[in-house]
Amino acid sequence: MVRTPTPEDRFSFGLWTVGWTGRDQFGDASRPALDPWEYATKLAELGAWGVTFHDDDVVPFGTPDEEREAILRRFRQATDDAGLVIEMVTTNTFGHPVFKDGALTSNDRSVRRFALRKALRNVDLAAEVGANTFVMWGGREGSEYDGAKDVGSALDRYREGVDTVAAYIKDRGYDLRIALEPKPNEPRGDIFLPTVGHALGFIAQLEHGDIVGLNPETGHEQMAGLNYTHALAQALWSDKLFHIDLNGQRSIKFDQDLVFGHGDLLSAFFTVDLVENGFPNSPETRRYTGPRHFDYKPSRTEGFDGVWESARANMETYLMLAEKARAYRADPEVQAAFEQSGVFELGRPTLNEGESVADLLADRSAFEDFDADAAAEREFGFVRLNQLALAHLIG
Amino acid sequence: MVRTPTPEDRFSFGLWTVGWTGRDQFGDASRPALDPWEYATKLAELGAWGVTFHDDDVVPFGTPDEEREAILRRFRQATDDAGLVIEMVTTNTFGHPVFKDGALTSNDRSVRRFALRKALRNVDLAAEVGANTFVMWGGREGSEYDGAKDVGSALDRYREGVDTVAAYIKDRGYDLRIALEPKPNEPRGDIFLPTVGHALGFIAQLEHGDIVGLNPETGHEQMAGLNYTHALAQALWSDKLFHIDLNGQRSIKFDQDLVFGHGDLLSAFFTVDLVENGFPNSPETRRYTGPRHFDYKPSRTEGFDGVWESARANMETYLMLAEKARAYRADPEVQAAFEQSGVFELGRPTLNEGESVADLLADRSAFEDFDADAAAEREFGFVRLNQLALAHLIG
Amino acid sequence: MVRTPTPEDRFSFGLWTVGWTGRDQFGDASRPALDPWEYATKLAELGAWGVTFHDDDVVPFGTPDEEREAILRRFRQATDDAGLVIEMVTTNTFGHPVFKDGALTSNDRSVRRFALRKALRNVDLAAEVGANTFVMWGGREGSEYDGAKDVGSALDRYREGVDTVAAYIKDRGYDLRIALEPKPNEPRGDIFLPTVGHALGFIAQLEHGDIVGLNPETGHEQMAGLNYTHALAQALWSDKLFHIDLNGQRSIKFDQDLVFGHGDLLSAFFTVDLVENGFPNSPETRRYTGPRHFDYKPSRTEGFDGVWESARANMETYLMLAEKARAYRADPEVQAAFEQSGVFELGRPTLNEGESVADLLADRSAFEDFDADAAAEREFGFVRLNQLALAHLIG
Amino acid sequence: MVRTPTPEDRFSFGLWTVGWTGRDQFGDASRPALDPWEYATKLAELGAWGVTFHDDDVVPFGTPDEEREAILRRFRQATDDAGLVIEMVTTNTFGHPVFKDGALTSNDRSVRRFALRKALRNVDLAAEVGANTFVMWGGREGSEYDGAKDVGSALDRYREGVDTVAAYIKDRGYDLRIALEPKPNEPRGDIFLPTVGHALGFIAQLEHGDIVGLNPETGHEQMAGLNYTHALAQALWSDKLFHIDLNGQRSIKFDQDLVFGHGDLLSAFFTVDLVENGFPNSPETRRYTGPRHFDYKPSRTEGFDGVWESARANMETYLMLAEKARAYRADPEVQAAFEQSGVFELGRPTLNEGESVADLLADRSAFEDFDADAAAEREFGFVRLNQLALAHLIG
Repeated sequence: MVRTPTPEDRFSFGLWTVGWTGRDQFGDASRPALDPWEYATKLAELGAWGVTFHDDDVVPFGTPDEEREAILRRFRQATDDAGLVIEMVTTNTFGHPVFKDGALTSNDRSVRRFALRKALRNVDLAAEVGANTFVMWGGREGSEYDGAKDVGSALDRYREGVDTVAAYIKDRGYDLRIALEPKPNEPRGDIFLPTVGHALGFIAQLEHGDIVGLNPETGHEQMAGLNYTHALAQALWSDKLFHIDLNGQRSIKFDQDLVFGHGDLLSAFFTVDLVENGFPNSPETRRYTGPRHFDYKPSRTEGFDGVWESARANMETYLMLAEKARAYRADPEVQAAFEQSGVFELGRPTLNEGESVADLLADRSAFEDFDADAAAEREFGFVRLNQLALAHLIG
Repeated sequence: MVRTPTPEDRFSFGLWTVGWTGRDQFGDASRPALDPWEYATKLAELGAWGVTFHDDDVVPFGTPDEEREAILRRFRQATDDAGLVIEMVTTNTFGHPVFKDGALTSNDRSVRRFALRKALRNVDLAAEVGANTFVMWGGREGSEYDGAKDVGSALDRYREGVDTVAAYIKDRGYDLRIALEPKPNEPRGDIFLPTVGHALGFIAQLEHGDIVGLNPETGHEQMAGLNYTHALAQALWSDKLFHIDLNGQRSIKFDQDLVFGHGDLLSAFFTVDLVENGFPNSPETRRYTGPRHFDYKPSRTEGFDGVWESARANMETYLMLAEKARAYRADPEVQAAFEQSGVFELGRPTLNEGESVADLLADRSAFEDFDADAAAEREFGFVRLNQLALAHLIG
Repeated sequence: MVRTPTPEDRFSFGLWTVGWTGRDQFGDASRPALDPWEYATKLAELGAWGVTFHDDDVVPFGTPDEEREAILRRFRQATDDAGLVIEMVTTNTFGHPVFKDGALTSNDRSVRRFALRKALRNVDLAAEVGANTFVMWGGREGSEYDGAKDVGSALDRYREGVDTVAAYIKDRGYDLRIALEPKPNEPRGDIFLPTVGHALGFIAQLEHGDIVGLNPETGHEQMAGLNYTHALAQALWSDKLFHIDLNGQRSIKFDQDLVFGHGDLLSAFFTVDLVENGFPNSPETRRYTGPRHFDYKPSRTEGFDGVWESARANMETYLMLAEKARAYRADPEVQAAFEQSGVFELGRPTLNEGESVADLLADRSAFEDFDADAAAEREFGFVRLNQLALAHLIG
Repeated sequence: MVRTPTPEDRFSFGLWTVGWTGRDQFGDASRPALDPWEYATKLAELGAWGVTFHDDDVVPFGTPDEEREAILRRFRQATDDAGLVIEMVTTNTFGHPVFKDGALTSNDRSVRRFALRKALRNVDLAAEVGANTFVMWGGREGSEYDGAKDVGSALDRYREGVDTVAAYIKDRGYDLRIALEPKPNEPRGDIFLPTVGHALGFIAQLEHGDIVGLNPETGHEQMAGLNYTHALAQALWSDKLFHIDLNGQRSIKFDQDLVFGHGDLLSAFFTVDLVENGFPNSPETRRYTGPRHFDYKPSRTEGFDGVWESARANMETYLMLAEKARAYRADPEVQAAFEQSGVFELGRPTLNEGESVADLLADRSAFEDFDADAAAEREFGFVRLNQLALAHLIG
């Protein structure tokens, strides 16, 4: 029903997504692990344009250097053969128990140094394979107990770590940008940089913040009850939306990593609307232009048929939503509802061109003669606008 | 049992706290409203050092200028007589239905201009009454429906508004700083700047961000499941902790505004520990020095006895926690547990003094010869450290 | 696009829904109140079949008897003229401050007696106007502080109250059933009978539980992060699904009361699927046959155009979802996916007909010879099944 | 500071608690596994009175019968030597991937039969080792997708399974009761019987419900934002509180399984108050008399020192809270506050002894002459009562 994805759609997948074996907090793996090149090849067949990976997804932790090289060669051959782009690389600083109290912010300094080295080595690999984005998810940076961390020092160390990696990238002249991935909790009780906002605030304190941005994940924001599309919007507004992780989450609970659209569907529609169509008042100038990356898990109930079905479902859903979002924006009735709702009016500065504060203070129509009760009666028509969106989505 | 608070404790209360009449979403007021000076006088008797207010708490919306002046005179006389400081003033841009779609980010431009004028007038009042902090809570800045807002434009307007107010403060030479108060939702479905992090990221985009900081509220962060003490810590680390709103919240639900300590008690202990004792590794240099401000609501079940009891309870709880936090930090067993846990070690930079990345890459002990499995066995002793805190708290 | 609703659709609305004036926790009303008959007439025009109300929605609290009679006469004349059914009546035991600590479980015995009398008077009214369902929402039955209630006694009193009302209904021979409406919190910090489950457990302890069932509300279950469709299912399975309250909620936060479908849309689809099509294995025998009742609030940003648009939107969305749910169930591909997924297989008892436990224990194929590893490989195909649902919903 | 626990305290621990190796959703084990008898011996040294286990905690899944017998003998020898009671046994129907879609409600009938057999075998073991409680946690009974289950059939099968086990227990004459353990989600997206309430409602539908009750876990209720003490209270009120699982959880997120008291401390105080002191109005007659069982996880950051420290911390915290709760109840000021708050008044039936509904309707003082406005002014003093509890807790 929906067309097959093409490389132009720029869909990419983490190897760890289709590669998840189903081992969870309460149970053992329900599927065997394949070799990394097998996942890549299959994703290409399904229409994916790119793949991404953690270092340890391709080369197991602790593999001797020579063997590492051989594995990487074979993997790159496979992606080349399949015509796949490796658009992003990320570092696993959470799986091995050495990172049990964090990596860049572990209370153990030797662990911090090790983590930094692991990340730097991975920067070289990322550059080598042609990735443009280097995601840093600090899943173990955090605590269960408030007394266990000097959070001031932890943020000092986090800054030191990220700045060191960024300086290294610049120093080597790599065409690579760092994208931080926030998450509020799980596996730690509280994770540092829990939301897109906290990461934006953190980046503002960096020395090399110019090449550091965000990789917001749908479910991670929703685990804090926050609006994912608003998160993308603030990142975009701050010129920091470097990458996205699309998936599905149902309310505030453990990290579900469902297929994109299998969580909050109406929210997914507006996410795609923003990604595909931009802001209504600046559709061209403030735009996300990166890959459509999926970071999800095929449910543990599924075998390999289900794994590939779920990968396909992510892309199919995205394409369906994109088509609907385009029709929604193009619909004259929607445009009229935008007009009535003041969506375009919000694009106009509050002050007139050249108006000073003194001018504003002198404008009696703005305050002294303003009839607040009358203005309060304005019909914004937001419910109707939302129903128009719903009708486009399911109509 | 606990000593009576003194002005040195710098406890302050919003007039709207003890002044809440108990009208809620589902029911009518359960207590009458007193005159503003009555609340102030009573708070002083209880040991408060300061009061704070929204413009409309003292002078009802729409009061003619002359009457306004008379009310303000009488109110200031009462605070002077009671020896109360007016440490903060804030603007009500949420109560009147004219703000139903927001104030500085309303889709209606005339409302935005009106809101700006209301805020500017209140800046003058804040300066006049000697306040040092001007809180801006944008409770209606947000949306229920993603299509109802161009979030890029909304953040443009929010920036325009806050920058205009900040420029005005500078222009007038007022000794006043703006403190933004984040909240994730309620009354809007999603509020812009939902957490401390988002506000920090936003401030980084301001022209006059140097005089704009944060006023984090306990319950607002906890409504997003976030760690309030971590929020204070990141604000402090960013040199943006200008003011605090202490209260109590029990899990993720509607905004409860309970007495401080009547929500998550262990979290309240660590909040006070941070406010009173600073970070373990920089107890003096990165410190919150502002008022201990309570923003809570006496439960609707209470009469005026309960109103004053609840005000008293906030201060009593704070003083009890402060005493315990001091003993906790001074306890040699706790210090030893900090040592074992690496809390102090986290204060040491990850790189040696003068160490370059090249040096780090050349340090084989950091990576090639690092025994990750051995390092993973480190006993951090975090649970014992937390139990020591608990024993200090309830022992 | 969607057909106009007809009485056969059995859509009904609470008067308090379209009648909400927009007064919320943080702001004043944004719309005036109309007379109750005006709402009723308008709802009929929009295609509603029925209306419902709290006593105080029609006759303000404290109205003298004579005046009450006149108002009720006029209201019934209006509903009769409009051809509207009054299918449900409910009692306001939460708005007046006398109920600040609850009604049937208030710590104040005189309040409990008053609440009981208010409910009994309303039972008579419900019977008189021909309602078949008497909803009891105990919004103030609860506490903020665990010490404030003897919960054992509170449940004793709750049982006493509900049983008294139920006995009265039987005694009078009214054709009326009680439907309890659970809610986890708001306005109280914790409400008794917080979920559908707790109410089912409570009903099992009643003397007159045979005429007491449930009125589950979409958002109320979702405020506890629970699956609304599962809640309906367990109530139905327990033969206790007497009435439903449809609306929309976005994640765990304050009670949003959005238009049905404007919250979790995929969940709304499956809710309608259950209501319209029943359980896959017992589509006819365990079925909800009551009204499709909406309990929502037109957003405070809306004027009266928005009020009527939002009422219409509830019905439109329901009709769209119903059509899609029918096509979904009828689709042979979906039926095949049900088959593969074991949805029908779950309808088969685990024991064979007549099989005793001894027989089961003797069946070596069930345990000793059962190959768990092989069985673990079954492809359930749940993700594909869900994607089929999604495709029906938005395809 | 706190006395060492004794067997009279009846503290018990699941083997899987201290036995958790730290493997979580995102990382590998941080501690090795010990033999089951090692955990048991150590727990006895720390003052525990009892241990509990899943079948697979002692005997790995799939162990041949003979080896199983040998392991069990050795384990029982160790518990006997240590003077430990085995008070509860539970069945692991969630770890092996064969249970990926559930056990008693798996869509695969052969899995249901296998699960039933596994449970029945474990019933025999439970009886043999002298346990009195047989916990059933259906952690995999549930779904991620609403279409994946016929929930009516799922509840039919759940009932069939539990009734079969209960009938078997009766048939064999075992002194054993079943305790269901609810959980809202994780590992499944939605788990059937998500809260104490749902389980109570389910039990009411059983044939053999007389020997089926509840095992409520602190964190599981709090993961739905519900009040754990209220959950215990309703279970107790329904005469179904057969067992308890104490631990700590911080707000709505993944299942944290912290040490008891390391989550919501004020809530933990009231939990202990209820368990130790009963309801204020029926302290003797409706009482929990079972073990104080801890179901927690030593944080992954801890080594074995931390494991034992954390086990000790659970008991220490409980003992501290119990002492404080006794002093709280005995305090005349608290008793006076109970009196003022109407806590005792709630123990009085709403109707007078022998009063009929007709009598109530004839009592004009209850309604016609009742002054609601005056009654609304009652000072319940709940905040002060809560502050008294807080002062006892931390004073």
